[in-house]
Amino acid sequence: MEIEIATVGGYEEVGRQMTAVRAGDDVVVFDMGLNLSQVLIHDDVRTEQMHSLDLIDMGAIPDDRVMSELEGDVKAIVPTHGHLDHIGAISKLAHRYNAPIVATPFTLALVEQEVDDESKFTVDNDLVEMEAGETMSIGSSGQVELEFVNVTHSVIDAINPVLHTPEGAVVYGLDKRMDHTPVIGDPIDMERFREIGREGNGVLAYIEDCTNAGKKGRTPSESVAREHLKDVMQSIEDYDGGIVATTFSSHIARVKSLVEFAKDIGRQPVLLGRSMEKYSGTAERLNFVEFPDDLGMYGHRKSVDRTFKRIMKEGKENFLPIVTGHQGEPRAMLTRMGRGETPYELDEGDKVIFSARVIPEPTNEGQRYQSERLLRMQGARIYDEIHVSGHLREEGHFEMLQALQPEHVIPAHQDLKGFSPYVDLCESQGYELGRDLHVTRNGNLIQLVE
Amino acid sequence: MEIEIATVGGYEEVGRQMTAVRAGDDVVVFDMGLNLSQVLIHDDVRTEQMHSLDLIDMGAIPDDRVMSELEGDVKAIVPTHGHLDHIGAISKLAHRYNAPIVATPFTLALVEQEVDDESKFTVDNDLVEMEAGETMSIGSSGQVELEFVNVTHSVIDAINPVLHTPEGAVVYGLDKRMDHTPVIGDPIDMERFREIGREGNGVLAYIEDCTNAGKKGRTPSESVAREHLKDVMQSIEDYDGGIVATTFSSHIARVKSLVEFAKDIGRQPVLLGRSMEKYSGTAERLNFVEFPDDLGMYGHRKSVDRTFKRIMKEGKENFLPIVTGHQGEPRAMLTRMGRGETPYELDEGDKVIFSARVIPEPTNEGQRYQSERLLRMQGARIYDEIHVSGHLREEGHFEMLQALQPEHVIPAHQDLKGFSPYVDLCESQGYELGRDLHVTRNGNLIQLVE
Amino acid sequence: MEIEIATVGGYEEVGRQMTAVRAGDDVVVFDMGLNLSQVLIHDDVRTEQMHSLDLIDMGAIPDDRVMSELEGDVKAIVPTHGHLDHIGAISKLAHRYNAPIVATPFTLALVEQEVDDESKFTVDNDLVEMEAGETMSIGSSGQVELEFVNVTHSVIDAINPVLHTPEGAVVYGLDKRMDHTPVIGDPIDMERFREIGREGNGVLAYIEDCTNAGKKGRTPSESVAREHLKDVMQSIEDYDGGIVATTFSSHIARVKSLVEFAKDIGRQPVLLGRSMEKYSGTAERLNFVEFPDDLGMYGHRKSVDRTFKRIMKEGKENFLPIVTGHQGEPRAMLTRMGRGETPYELDEGDKVIFSARVIPEPTNEGQRYQSERLLRMQGARIYDEIHVSGHLREEGHFEMLQALQPEHVIPAHQDLKGFSPYVDLCESQGYELGRDLHVTRNGNLIQLVE
Amino acid sequence: MEIEIATVGGYEEVGRQMTAVRAGDDVVVFDMGLNLSQVLIHDDVRTEQMHSLDLIDMGAIPDDRVMSELEGDVKAIVPTHGHLDHIGAISKLAHRYNAPIVATPFTLALVEQEVDDESKFTVDNDLVEMEAGETMSIGSSGQVELEFVNVTHSVIDAINPVLHTPEGAVVYGLDKRMDHTPVIGDPIDMERFREIGREGNGVLAYIEDCTNAGKKGRTPSESVAREHLKDVMQSIEDYDGGIVATTFSSHIARVKSLVEFAKDIGRQPVLLGRSMEKYSGTAERLNFVEFPDDLGMYGHRKSVDRTFKRIMKEGKENFLPIVTGHQGEPRAMLTRMGRGETPYELDEGDKVIFSARVIPEPTNEGQRYQSERLLRMQGARIYDEIHVSGHLREEGHFEMLQALQPEHVIPAHQDLKGFSPYVDLCESQGYELGRDLHVTRNGNLIQLVE
Repeated sequence: MEIEIATVGGYEEVGRQMTAVRAGDDVVVFDMGLNLSQVLIHDDVRTEQMHSLDLIDMGAIPDDRVMSELEGDVKAIVPTHGHLDHIGAISKLAHRYNAPIVATPFTLALVEQEVDDESKFTVDNDLVEMEAGETMSIGSSGQVELEFVNVTHSVIDAINPVLHTPEGAVVYGLDKRMDHTPVIGDPIDMERFREIGREGNGVLAYIEDCTNAGKKGRTPSESVAREHLKDVMQSIEDYDGGIVATTFSSHIARVKSLVEFAKDIGRQPVLLGRSMEKYSGTAERLNFVEFPDDLGMYGHRKSVDRTFKRIMKEGKENFLPIVTGHQGEPRAMLTRMGRGETPYELDEGDKVIFSARVIPEPTNEGQRYQSERLLRMQGARIYDEIHVSGHLREEGHFEMLQALQPEHVIPAHQDLKGFSPYVDLCESQGYELGRDLHVTRNGNLIQLVE
Repeated sequence: MEIEIATVGGYEEVGRQMTAVRAGDDVVVFDMGLNLSQVLIHDDVRTEQMHSLDLIDMGAIPDDRVMSELEGDVKAIVPTHGHLDHIGAISKLAHRYNAPIVATPFTLALVEQEVDDESKFTVDNDLVEMEAGETMSIGSSGQVELEFVNVTHSVIDAINPVLHTPEGAVVYGLDKRMDHTPVIGDPIDMERFREIGREGNGVLAYIEDCTNAGKKGRTPSESVAREHLKDVMQSIEDYDGGIVATTFSSHIARVKSLVEFAKDIGRQPVLLGRSMEKYSGTAERLNFVEFPDDLGMYGHRKSVDRTFKRIMKEGKENFLPIVTGHQGEPRAMLTRMGRGETPYELDEGDKVIFSARVIPEPTNEGQRYQSERLLRMQGARIYDEIHVSGHLREEGHFEMLQALQPEHVIPAHQDLKGFSPYVDLCESQGYELGRDLHVTRNGNLIQLVE
Repeated sequence: MEIEIATVGGYEEVGRQMTAVRAGDDVVVFDMGLNLSQVLIHDDVRTEQMHSLDLIDMGAIPDDRVMSELEGDVKAIVPTHGHLDHIGAISKLAHRYNAPIVATPFTLALVEQEVDDESKFTVDNDLVEMEAGETMSIGSSGQVELEFVNVTHSVIDAINPVLHTPEGAVVYGLDKRMDHTPVIGDPIDMERFREIGREGNGVLAYIEDCTNAGKKGRTPSESVAREHLKDVMQSIEDYDGGIVATTFSSHIARVKSLVEFAKDIGRQPVLLGRSMEKYSGTAERLNFVEFPDDLGMYGHRKSVDRTFKRIMKEGKENFLPIVTGHQGEPRAMLTRMGRGETPYELDEGDKVIFSARVIPEPTNEGQRYQSERLLRMQGARIYDEIHVSGHLREEGHFEMLQALQPEHVIPAHQDLKGFSPYVDLCESQGYELGRDLHVTRNGNLIQLVE
Repeated sequence: MEIEIATVGGYEEVGRQMTAVRAGDDVVVFDMGLNLSQVLIHDDVRTEQMHSLDLIDMGAIPDDRVMSELEGDVKAIVPTHGHLDHIGAISKLAHRYNAPIVATPFTLALVEQEVDDESKFTVDNDLVEMEAGETMSIGSSGQVELEFVNVTHSVIDAINPVLHTPEGAVVYGLDKRMDHTPVIGDPIDMERFREIGREGNGVLAYIEDCTNAGKKGRTPSESVAREHLKDVMQSIEDYDGGIVATTFSSHIARVKSLVEFAKDIGRQPVLLGRSMEKYSGTAERLNFVEFPDDLGMYGHRKSVDRTFKRIMKEGKENFLPIVTGHQGEPRAMLTRMGRGETPYELDEGDKVIFSARVIPEPTNEGQRYQSERLLRMQGARIYDEIHVSGHLREEGHFEMLQALQPEHVIPAHQDLKGFSPYVDLCESQGYELGRDLHVTRNGNLIQLVE
């Protein structure tokens, strides 16, 4: 059976991920993501109202024209987890394919919301739920199967899809950390990966997330971030003024830890900001997390401000607002608080916890610096970098190669510079560039079995 | 009562700490340390055989000539913990003072060993044990008392000495982290610090360790490092080849964690290298830590090599050697292993765990880089930076100021650049340079009460 | 005669410089500057319309309340050169003092413009011109004289004022580079500095600009930047598309080099942007520089856009627009060009020359990065960092100390961290902190002679 | 005619460059270099006595086994310039090929010395001189020609060899800077490159030196470094103590500038250290540079020390020793001076000029730091980074692509991470990875024309 891979997007950047795998006549698409940075460089671009081609020209969404060179039909669109760089282009591209969107429940719920927010296109592909550990037959050959293997990432319900073909498995490895003690959900299913590596024809190809390939050692478990966060929050338990926290809204495990530790130190947690409400609300509705009954979540500006007023009235020392703004985004809640634009008044000695890392890019760094400066001008004390990454480091990559023993390796989710440490690792394990180690770019086809 | 402080050493550098406090006619000396870097820049200097004056000229030990300007008698020499930059000059300077050396048991045992190794001078000052929480009367006025407050640092049995005088307390704050969940020993005694801040005349002066004053947030607890280490070691539990670990020899809590996790993953830990044997042996003898009965500790080259041979014979997969060499020191055990100079043979895929941070100085960085390169050339996989610092960061300093409310603040344990973020913090809290915030240098007297 | 120094502003930051020296009953004020960064952190602040006290509270202008503690009358206000951090608060503060503003012609012309732009206050102090090399009697004692010594900086007509008193000279050393081959004007007058060091009672006090004290070696001459710029421009001589350059508008020597090299490679230079017009226009009017007769300078948006249209019509290959925007300022000309908001169209291969360095602060770095990204998205090729600093480095400071042999040294123009390498240097030369080396903060008095 | 390229060495590292180009039956080898870093990581390795295979295993010299896969005979070995990473393996590998070594006079003289120093192998290949601008017929087909195009680099007499074939030219672009005003020799021959780009079938393939591809702008001309050096040296003209300078020994243009400026400031230059004597002696002998008649050059330890004694006797203020040790190499002359191991005594205020950049690698950085620290401990004042690189930056690469318009591009002289900015540039110019842009590794064949 012919096996071919189309590297549609995300092979020259972080963002706008999209990969298609053809097995005989059947094609499965993994991810359709957005590169937000290409949008934000322009002032006042509103993506909801933009046409796909303009977004492709901007480098914001994958240029899927290479798909026409693939001889076969798309049978499934498979977003691997709910981050925008993996689902953010579905509303712009999915309608071009006559295929269902297959994803885990949490991911699927987020896809649904994306599609609902879209004004330009009507996306009416079927939405099909599939859980980690389950499989589904692809196409009519009876020879191709799609399996979801449970992985751990900085968002819940993430999987690595595996396309089983007569020629071996194609494992799509984006995005994950190897976490044996995650705070929510099951540990990464390394046992299954090892089995896949040994069973049948083994692994024909492995597509890997190189984001942190250049960092030594292993990415710590979320339980390490949790212990770190606990240490910080317990150390300020006795403080009788305001404490505010921020983190990635989609990072439900972290939000859960914040909520729990808030309770532990006698404060009422409350989630504020549109995306806080969206992600945590969805996670709770789908029973991924059980929040206290009295946990407030407010997204609209008015209800947020009303909540801030109530907090000021009932005493800041009784609350832990968990807000948006961990990167210093100019319009996010925490930045507004720094500018004094909300009813919440910061006092000398108040604590601000950034349970996040600054994404290392000058624009972010500048905005984050401004945000901290504004907060400090009001007397805030800053605790930052209470975080662990969601992406494998060097030793995680080493372990994945050991587990899967793939015949071919395809680095992804970075530019060439970002691929290079992963290529070094692969070469040290006997792979050879251009033979079984495929450094490629957006828009290419890799014929694995002819 | 006149209160005066002599800033003998460690006010222009990290290393060779020494401070004297005079209360009326009685003087207490805190620390007598060594600046190892000033020794190592020279080839083949052997400090054991050197005279004090030469070491003073080299900048290696404190220049205690300023002591002659203090009108009073030294009544006690008080090393605060067992690191060389705090006890390393005792063997060169203590004999000049007719006073006992007063310290906690572990610190005292290390002082005893330093004094025994000395060839040039005979140090026969009395050695007096005093535990954290205890006090001792100083001099004959009946008005001055020395108290040890329990603190947490990267070595066990560390205290902050407090000299209680009629004019208020002088708190000597070197070196500590604010750890509420240390792995060995009691948490930092913040309650006592808060009491000292409020009782009697409060705190007259606070001398602070500025090492990490420029780092945001708080220094994580040792329990965070332990969780991180556990995560790393459990992730390689299934590996059936060699695993080697290194850390600071004096960091008993870390060594204890390594030993325990070795057992957890089915390996026999063994401590190798002179200083590993020295510190852990002392800690065990004094009952600070209970190691497994079968834990081997070997310091001499011959017994180390014999152990390595045994490990190779019985199977590397059954052992966890915990060795010296975390900074890539050219003659340490791990560096020798990298060079292939020991019977322990590294194989492709073997793991090396650096539970330590590279001390950020070009010489160290160069040596550590070389060491890692040699290890990698033999196929080793590196896990590094599994560590937390032993020094307060910005928010720890903020909390100490809140707790003690000192009248005067004296930054120490850094050069001027290192003092500056601490000065910024103090100024933001109302202190004023030259009034109650004393930025000073080695060899000065500060008259607090005349 | 009593000599006292008031460190009004710029002793905790770069910006809002102001220092007063009292000699007997006579006071001279050196500089009244603005800290622009404290203004820009707020959105939409318009300083022209703000009251002094609000600007003082913001940390934007010097808090001159300490002046009331100086017993004497201000006899002269002496801005040393035309940068905003030295003249930008004159329009807000000078009217409080009944004293003339004494400055070199170029500086004075810029002060005049500042004062004209002010809407809140009427500043009608006398404006008195004095050239480098000239002196003026201060007060009626007949014993105090003000001298201007020629120095070299990144703006023309800079001087270091020296107040000659019976107790020795007080030399105000802000801001300068030691340039023996400047492109405009005379070399730094080191001979005069050496004389001042030796004559009479020598130098009582030296106030020094520490901006680059932590950088090794010496700051290169403007002639090195010119050679560098020439090399870049000649290398693109054959390019037949657009070339655009940007630099500090007040840096007349650099603008002159750009204009000359434009001619050398057959292009018509044209200065675009408000501050370009202002500084270069002033310099030309005062005969500091002779520009070609046909050199256009346009400040208003409309005339700039008209010029861009003409350039597009007559052929980009015939022009060198020299524009504002070297730091990526959002509203500057080059950033607008990057955004496609001007009639000038960039094509693939067009060259953009940044004859400037990014000021190392995250906000700037973020903006500059954005600006370059926008320019590159249009195909621009970037040449940057074609620049030398205007501030002394370590060896320049060493030479100044050798020349002046001052009795007292007072570091300025930095925060404490910035002072520290200069303090290290002074200490290595025998000065002692708190004795003759005065590390101080804003708002203090230093009594040198009582 | 079949055209094939073998990427023997230097495609995964900086060092051990070697590339073979086959045109029909004729093969030309470009460079045979040494990777010194792979030698120095081991203690006490003496390469002169080592066998090729051991050096190949160490990664020190190119693994030329891929040459056996090339169907054709080596007709010439062409070292492009005299740096060790281009000629250092000739003594180990050239004897395996029955072909002359063809190089420019200076390069050839250095090759001869390398060959003479070798103890293990006898290299008796013919040595053939060919000047820049000349051509030579290769093989007997009458269709293949070798041309040397003059380029500018940090060593004199560097060329880029071009192999003219019926299918187009193969241009080997290692190593160069685009210098229109070099201090010695002719400017880079851009006109000839442009001609080669247009004539016949144009350029079939271009192999490029990516060392500085990630740096913005253009590499400045040596005349900029010269102006910078002149500025430094004139600024210390009046100093009446010791001045010492160091630079790359092979950098004859820089040595020449140092010698001239020494004279200008009234000092007698003298070259000290083995490699100083070797390179400058050779350059003078071959008339590349005319040094003053009285310029001493001393390589042997004894004669160096004798010279130092003479300098101390006749007065340091009369001399400028130009010595080895710019990277802080432990055994070089300047490091020995820092350690006080030479008769030259440094005094407080003496100047040390590093006309070189620290090669950015932790080992170097550590050694250089140690060297400076030792020099400073003796009172030396340091001037460093007075240097420009010998390698093209981004805009130089852009210009070369514009000039040559090559059909295929092959990045070299870096690892993959180092290639990546060059790949980005090529892609922005329309090249496509895997089609006409060949990112490859050591030991591969690239078939360009079949």
